Amino acid sequence: MAPRYKLSYFQLTGLGEPIRLLFHYGGIAFEDNRIPKDQWPAFKSGAPLEQLPLLEVDGKVLFQSIAITRYVAHIVGLDGKTALENSEIDAVVDSVNDLRSKTLNWAYETDKAKKAQLAAALFAEPFPFFLNKFESWASKNGGYLALGRLTWADIYAIAILDFLGSIFKKNLIEGHPNLIKMRENVVSIPRIKAWIANRPKDVIQFD
Amino acid sequence: MAPRYKLSYFQLTGLGEPIRLLFHYGGIAFEDNRIPKDQWPAFKSGAPLEQLPLLEVDGKVLFQSIAITRYVAHIVGLDGKTALENSEIDAVVDSVNDLRSKTLNWAYETDKAKKAQLAAALFAEPFPFFLNKFESWASKNGGYLALGRLTWADIYAIAILDFLGSIFKKNLIEGHPNLIKMRENVVSIPRIKAWIANRPKDVIQFD
Repeated sequence: MAPRYKLSYFQLTGLGEPIRLLFHYGGIAFEDNRIPKDQWPAFKSGAPLEQLPLLEVDGKVLFQSIAITRYVAHIVGLDGKTALENSEIDAVVDSVNDLRSKTLNWAYETDKAKKAQLAAALFAEPFPFFLNKFESWASKNGGYLALGRLTWADIYAIAILDFLGSIFKKNLIEGHPNLIKMRENVVSIPRIKAWIANRPKDVIQFD
Repeated sequence: MAPRYKLSYFQLTGLGEPIRLLFHYGGIAFEDNRIPKDQWPAFKSGAPLEQLPLLEVDGKVLFQSIAITRYVAHIVGLDGKTALENSEIDAVVDSVNDLRSKTLNWAYETDKAKKAQLAAALFAEPFPFFLNKFESWASKNGGYLALGRLTWADIYAIAILDFLGSIFKKNLIEGHPNLIKMRENVVSIPRIKAWIANRPKDVIQFD
């Protein structure tokens, strides 16, 4: 019997979306449990690290977004074939996550002037630095970020870059032809295209 | 023929040490290339993300510390047997890394008073929060952090917690009996014990 998958996350693309995209890519049914922010405090202390996302697999609780994403990538066959291949994918994924992590101070800042300063600093250095690196990897790999073929690194990158683009209201990959090609390689996959066209809108605002 | 491994990192335990410990655990020869901090700028732009550590495997360059560590863990057989087992290990490793990441603002701060404030904040919340979580996982897993047996999660955790303990001049696992047991399970392994007794001292100071 196929395992039962239940993904719990906020009413948001964010860190849940790479996981959702992979399930949709693989045509695998899962419960998409979207917890409204005001209901989360009641569940929080029961989560292994008091964070979302969580993925329940036949009742076993997986946590840490990248650990969950890597697991689902394996299920749908978008991981590497060897440990060396997986290491190349993992390095890309952790680099995308490093860029994301640098935006957290901005996301938590409530003072408008300080928030604008933080955004300016992000777009002066980390964003161009990382996006230029990603562009060079996508160029080397023919429109993919690793291994010269579609892997979960591409799915992860597109989900996170689209999310960051939406909260900063910028098209982050503009002017990066190989990242544009990479995005097209992901979003043109029929099951992913269908999901993106119909998925719920993000409820939480960051600005 | 066995692959040739060359690890490049600073004259420091830090993010290189989980990798070194795994090589020593497995009895696998590797070149331990320790780059003095003043020589690093000359190499920096040639590194995929302008960061260390890097691991060369027969000339192929792996980057991102956790991606490298996971690869070496696989070589020495301290990974999981299934994707589900690996996800449990990965979640622990990323959690230890989350705690480490929270100390970076402290490490980069040069103002003495601000640095003291940041340290106080770290020991008021993130350290007790994460250490209590790790303690509960080590309790549930009988002196290991995942799967009820030795995995690279334990090696990674001990390397990072020992490193953070050394820079903050605190025994972080004090008062956490199952983390003390976990550390003993790691450092009593003969090849690890021998390496720790003889390894070079950290050259870089953070305070």
